[in-house]
Amino acid sequence: MKTLTLFKRIGLLLLLLFPLFSQSQPPRAPFVISPKVNPDKTVTFSYLAPNAKMVLLGGSQFGQTDVPMTKDAEGVWSVTVGPIKPDIYPYSFKVDGITVMDPANVAFFPNERFKASLVEIPSDAPAVYALKNVPHGSITYEYYPSVEGSTGTVVIYTPAGYTKETAKKYPVYYLISGTTDTEETFWKVGKVNLMLDNMIAAGTTKPMIVVMPYGNPLAKIAEQTGKDKPADVMSRDGEDALRRMKLFETDLVAQVIPYIEKNYRTINNRDNRAIGGFSRGGGQTLRTAFNNVDKFAYVCSYASYIAPAEMDKNFTSITANPIKTNKDFKLLWSGIGRDDFLYKGTVEFEDYLKTKKVNFKSYVTDGGHTWMNVKKYLNETLPVLFK
Amino acid sequence: MKTLTLFKRIGLLLLLLFPLFSQSQPPRAPFVISPKVNPDKTVTFSYLAPNAKMVLLGGSQFGQTDVPMTKDAEGVWSVTVGPIKPDIYPYSFKVDGITVMDPANVAFFPNERFKASLVEIPSDAPAVYALKNVPHGSITYEYYPSVEGSTGTVVIYTPAGYTKETAKKYPVYYLISGTTDTEETFWKVGKVNLMLDNMIAAGTTKPMIVVMPYGNPLAKIAEQTGKDKPADVMSRDGEDALRRMKLFETDLVAQVIPYIEKNYRTINNRDNRAIGGFSRGGGQTLRTAFNNVDKFAYVCSYASYIAPAEMDKNFTSITANPIKTNKDFKLLWSGIGRDDFLYKGTVEFEDYLKTKKVNFKSYVTDGGHTWMNVKKYLNETLPVLFK
Repeated sequence: MKTLTLFKRIGLLLLLLFPLFSQSQPPRAPFVISPKVNPDKTVTFSYLAPNAKMVLLGGSQFGQTDVPMTKDAEGVWSVTVGPIKPDIYPYSFKVDGITVMDPANVAFFPNERFKASLVEIPSDAPAVYALKNVPHGSITYEYYPSVEGSTGTVVIYTPAGYTKETAKKYPVYYLISGTTDTEETFWKVGKVNLMLDNMIAAGTTKPMIVVMPYGNPLAKIAEQTGKDKPADVMSRDGEDALRRMKLFETDLVAQVIPYIEKNYRTINNRDNRAIGGFSRGGGQTLRTAFNNVDKFAYVCSYASYIAPAEMDKNFTSITANPIKTNKDFKLLWSGIGRDDFLYKGTVEFEDYLKTKKVNFKSYVTDGGHTWMNVKKYLNETLPVLFK
Repeated sequence: MKTLTLFKRIGLLLLLLFPLFSQSQPPRAPFVISPKVNPDKTVTFSYLAPNAKMVLLGGSQFGQTDVPMTKDAEGVWSVTVGPIKPDIYPYSFKVDGITVMDPANVAFFPNERFKASLVEIPSDAPAVYALKNVPHGSITYEYYPSVEGSTGTVVIYTPAGYTKETAKKYPVYYLISGTTDTEETFWKVGKVNLMLDNMIAAGTTKPMIVVMPYGNPLAKIAEQTGKDKPADVMSRDGEDALRRMKLFETDLVAQVIPYIEKNYRTINNRDNRAIGGFSRGGGQTLRTAFNNVDKFAYVCSYASYIAPAEMDKNFTSITANPIKTNKDFKLLWSGIGRDDFLYKGTVEFEDYLKTKKVNFKSYVTDGGHTWMNVKKYLNETLPVLFK
């Protein structure tokens, strides 16, 4: 059929387009489908590597670690695991000891330090984070003027209907991801947009705008202005970490919030601003909220805390007058998993708040320091914001 | 300093959070910065792999292929290459024969079949696709009702000022990426948003909305409804390829365009609609435009063509009355690189149009079937749309 010449040529020649990515593959390499979620909730993972000696499935977060895969005659390694508890999990392959993403899977975990693919195992009754047939909000990427002359990047969720309306205004949830996560992680992994689509459609949650900033503006300054050395985000050096923390807070309060309130239809008072975050983002949340009580009435800490010594040193303004603090914060929320490596510190923080008679809501769940748990924290907190 | 307990713990324990991605690293693994673009336009690439036997830099698109890297005492492999001609290039590492993205680099090439990182070498006078201090437009991700009950995903560029205005309407450029690219590729790799920000600020280009659909809606149907088997996008089977092509056209004309025109402030006539695309997206562009002359007045083919035999069979409506066709299309544009594997077919297509007296604008440049060339095609075409 002459009409299909172009398709045939593309079919034949696609592997030639980017020779650097395909040199080990024969021209008629099998078309790998991976992952394949089976009806019984087992999952089959596959990876093409005719010359590899050993391929393992890395993905301890769904309960199995380094599962050996087996090679077929075409050089495709595969393994079926599970049934797996419905959720969204990161995974990767270990190919002769080298960690790689799944090249056949476009769903990935945005992160600055590791590369992982994502697999979603659907539940029988669709989960609160599932893509359902409800009105959908939008996700928008913006550039904005950030600290020290740099250009920042921020991701914004607006609820269904936002673009069609011209007058309605909304409360705003500022939501911050963790160390080495990016401004994309809370929607691409945390699915906060789909959760809100579903919750708003069900009438359980107030329509809101969610603003997801990038957590380490120092890196943008270094990259764009050359004024600063690229920061070791994991450095334990006290001054560096403190500078990153203050830059984040300045960026959020003096740059991000004014930009959002100028360009979006927001309700601009503390009762209609919430702040929350996971891991480092939770630490940034607590410090920013405690330093800016005039700005935020709702505060959500997902798997993070401030140590009592730091509270005593920097945040007596919060603990000195608990009656005022308890009136100021309409919600001070702390969630943690029993297996989270920050569990002990979080309990110490909560005990400290109790001693100081500062009210908070505590939520303890199974599991560790994972984005599976972040979705549980979102599920608990989104419905109680701005009410 | 007690105040830094949280940061210290995160610094220490980050590697424990996702053990699957870091088991081969010691707890005090060096913090790798990669890539590092040097002032002389050389680039230093680095990759941590203490146990690897051989690491190569894969990245033939900047003129060097499989460059051996050398290991330092900490297990970091690195190499400095260049000076490299300013542009944005994909690259990866080959670690003992396994292709991997750069784990230290968050910039990546969205694609369904290969995983590559991106490096930008800036030019002395900032390029037309560089991030500059000009008013920036927004990138928005939307879900929309797609073909056969599936939910589609589409990415939309709106120019600076769009969100603040309430009445101004804009022309729309429908822009389609290639085989295995995604709806993200035209902005994350092609930088169409930054190009338009710069061109609109310079006054050379009309403010416009750009709509970037996903090129293979059959895959969404398969994934979401189970009605269809996951498609081998590279299959050479005639019926499959034809079905994918028709589904794309139906989706664009009957679903995407009505959705956009309902939800965005668009000028809804053919003189204010353009269609363009790269590779498979260029083929989809030509076929969709030729089948829907009432819809689009501007047509841009970036490195693609229709074979004369298919033109004779399916598109005599275009060639039978060239005076009408030349009046219908305010622009029919064809760009190709001399080293592109589709060069010969494109020349045949252009010769065919000449024979049939159908006007078109031809643009021939150096280079191959690459996104470096796509940016050149955008640079030529964006300023002449809607004028």
